[in-house]
Amino acid sequence: MAPGTTPSAAPALQVAHWFNTPAPISLEQLRGRVVVLHAFQMLCPGCVAHGLPQSQRVHELFPADQLAVVGLHTVFEHHAVMGSPAALQAFIHEYRLSFPIGIDEPDGAEGVPLTMQALQLRGTPSLVVLDKQGHMRLHHFGTIDDLRLGALLGRLVAEPLPPTGDRQALAGCDDQGCLLPRPSTGAKID
Amino acid sequence: MAPGTTPSAAPALQVAHWFNTPAPISLEQLRGRVVVLHAFQMLCPGCVAHGLPQSQRVHELFPADQLAVVGLHTVFEHHAVMGSPAALQAFIHEYRLSFPIGIDEPDGAEGVPLTMQALQLRGTPSLVVLDKQGHMRLHHFGTIDDLRLGALLGRLVAEPLPPTGDRQALAGCDDQGCLLPRPSTGAKID
Amino acid sequence: MAPGTTPSAAPALQVAHWFNTPAPISLEQLRGRVVVLHAFQMLCPGCVAHGLPQSQRVHELFPADQLAVVGLHTVFEHHAVMGSPAALQAFIHEYRLSFPIGIDEPDGAEGVPLTMQALQLRGTPSLVVLDKQGHMRLHHFGTIDDLRLGALLGRLVAEPLPPTGDRQALAGCDDQGCLLPRPSTGAKID
Amino acid sequence: MAPGTTPSAAPALQVAHWFNTPAPISLEQLRGRVVVLHAFQMLCPGCVAHGLPQSQRVHELFPADQLAVVGLHTVFEHHAVMGSPAALQAFIHEYRLSFPIGIDEPDGAEGVPLTMQALQLRGTPSLVVLDKQGHMRLHHFGTIDDLRLGALLGRLVAEPLPPTGDRQALAGCDDQGCLLPRPSTGAKID
Repeated sequence: MAPGTTPSAAPALQVAHWFNTPAPISLEQLRGRVVVLHAFQMLCPGCVAHGLPQSQRVHELFPADQLAVVGLHTVFEHHAVMGSPAALQAFIHEYRLSFPIGIDEPDGAEGVPLTMQALQLRGTPSLVVLDKQGHMRLHHFGTIDDLRLGALLGRLVAEPLPPTGDRQALAGCDDQGCLLPRPSTGAKID
Repeated sequence: MAPGTTPSAAPALQVAHWFNTPAPISLEQLRGRVVVLHAFQMLCPGCVAHGLPQSQRVHELFPADQLAVVGLHTVFEHHAVMGSPAALQAFIHEYRLSFPIGIDEPDGAEGVPLTMQALQLRGTPSLVVLDKQGHMRLHHFGTIDDLRLGALLGRLVAEPLPPTGDRQALAGCDDQGCLLPRPSTGAKID
Repeated sequence: MAPGTTPSAAPALQVAHWFNTPAPISLEQLRGRVVVLHAFQMLCPGCVAHGLPQSQRVHELFPADQLAVVGLHTVFEHHAVMGSPAALQAFIHEYRLSFPIGIDEPDGAEGVPLTMQALQLRGTPSLVVLDKQGHMRLHHFGTIDDLRLGALLGRLVAEPLPPTGDRQALAGCDDQGCLLPRPSTGAKID
Repeated sequence: MAPGTTPSAAPALQVAHWFNTPAPISLEQLRGRVVVLHAFQMLCPGCVAHGLPQSQRVHELFPADQLAVVGLHTVFEHHAVMGSPAALQAFIHEYRLSFPIGIDEPDGAEGVPLTMQALQLRGTPSLVVLDKQGHMRLHHFGTIDDLRLGALLGRLVAEPLPPTGDRQALAGCDDQGCLLPRPSTGAKID
């Protein structure tokens, strides 16, 4: 089965601009790791007060080879103010966010951006958590407390990957591109 | 003595654009009331987490005829992102700030704005508190706890105005305009 | 008029045991200062989490000659556990409370203690605030936020004492004892 | 290998009095579940403000068949005040703690109680976390944040039990008593 076609798989990220990463990030690349996808807006008080500091804490707590935090700036209001890369760059700098953050691809000048649409998010802050195989295990709008989130992430990190034979199936091509099979020596998967 | 010439008097506000007020505000207008001047930037974490919610609480706690809260957007960094009225308007809307807020007059494209210069502020958040006669009684950089601020404001609100003869001296003209003598009956000023 | 007979005056403290003070305290002694009376129980979660730390902050913020914080251990439940001076002493030590605290005089083994009855308190935590003349200006059950309390205390501290002629009236005898007239020079009252 | 003899196994609980449980609890009984052992004292501010509310949250978050929270009142100071079951009972009632809590067996009138000695705890609050096989995986003095604790507990809950053959080895007798083999249908283990 090709990646992206499982019913509960997450749709591909559609990002106009990335920060805090030397290269664009795809969810396929992150297979084998738990992924915490945090959708926010820089003028969303609940994101600034709760969601973003929590995502930063998650990023600092878990080893990078076990879990990846990805921020997604899903601008669906005040586009003129929040839509520019310069605005987000200043925000990231002032709030000292160090995990990769992408600007969700706009759908015209005023609409809901494309990844947010594809993920069917209700608003910001939202958290989408993927297990090591890329399946959505949490799809949450609003805040969630640290203990509950920590417990979920700890459990997902501890889940074993499927046997190597099955893991090969994770490789292949879909409309996002082609993925090499993961090397069986898999540097940092645990 | 004309207003504005006392050594400890606050310099006049120089504001490019006002929000949450039907007309521009001058400190002279506010004589007779305690004034809490809060200098902030919308991308300053300490302002967003502490200073602005505190100023909003002060605004809601004290009767408007006793105390006035005035916000001042003193953009001294990230001018391209924060400098526009549209950016601040969206911010004020999302954070539900209801006290008057002015954009400190820029000094060119990248400098420290004019009121911030005149007030000799060190950064944001800053609080400047004026007593009923317009004298600076607090000039504070950083956060200050609610109990201490409440105690200062309660004390200043309780201070009697000088006798009418002296109060007349508050009227007159300076470079900001001309001020009518305060009516001696005026319990509620404005 | 003798102290204690004004309608809004606070009833006298009836205390079985004092801590953090070299001698018993009476409200009469504290005339000329604002008094914050905090009624608590050591097993009351709202007192431990909110009321007592706030009272300690008030004690540390205001000069002792302007304001006095007095704690009152008003045990009206779990008498066997909380009723002993040893229990309260250990509690005061562990929570590092440094303001004077009295054990409200028990009314038998299980009842509501006497000062709590006289003050008509509804429970703990409660705050009773007296102005410099000993009149009750706040009678509050439950928690109260720092800004509001600070504003009230700042205002009361700023209130002038009545002229000396009137102040003499504060002296005299009542059922608590006899009070010397306040010396007219006494800036710092103690 | 008999339970209790592995180097990292926890020593047996020695409890003088239990609350919130119909019968005494032993760690052997809890094999197959993650165990969070929280050592506290009712007059320890860090326990009251942080450790106990956190333990209550853990107790409410995790299913009882996956994780057990056990409180341990390890009185090593103020014995006269905190040492009685009545004092702890009132405390548990007022703070609405619903997980099982035991009074650590005193070592004479003034010493460090026996389980605390055996666990080599440095003070309160302390957290000891055991995995499903009873091995200590955390031995922590002081506070620990919710995200970190949640992540650890989530990971331990997700760890598989050893195969049935090995699990039988968990049964048997040691100096604490004799344990029946766990039924292979194991009602509630996951």
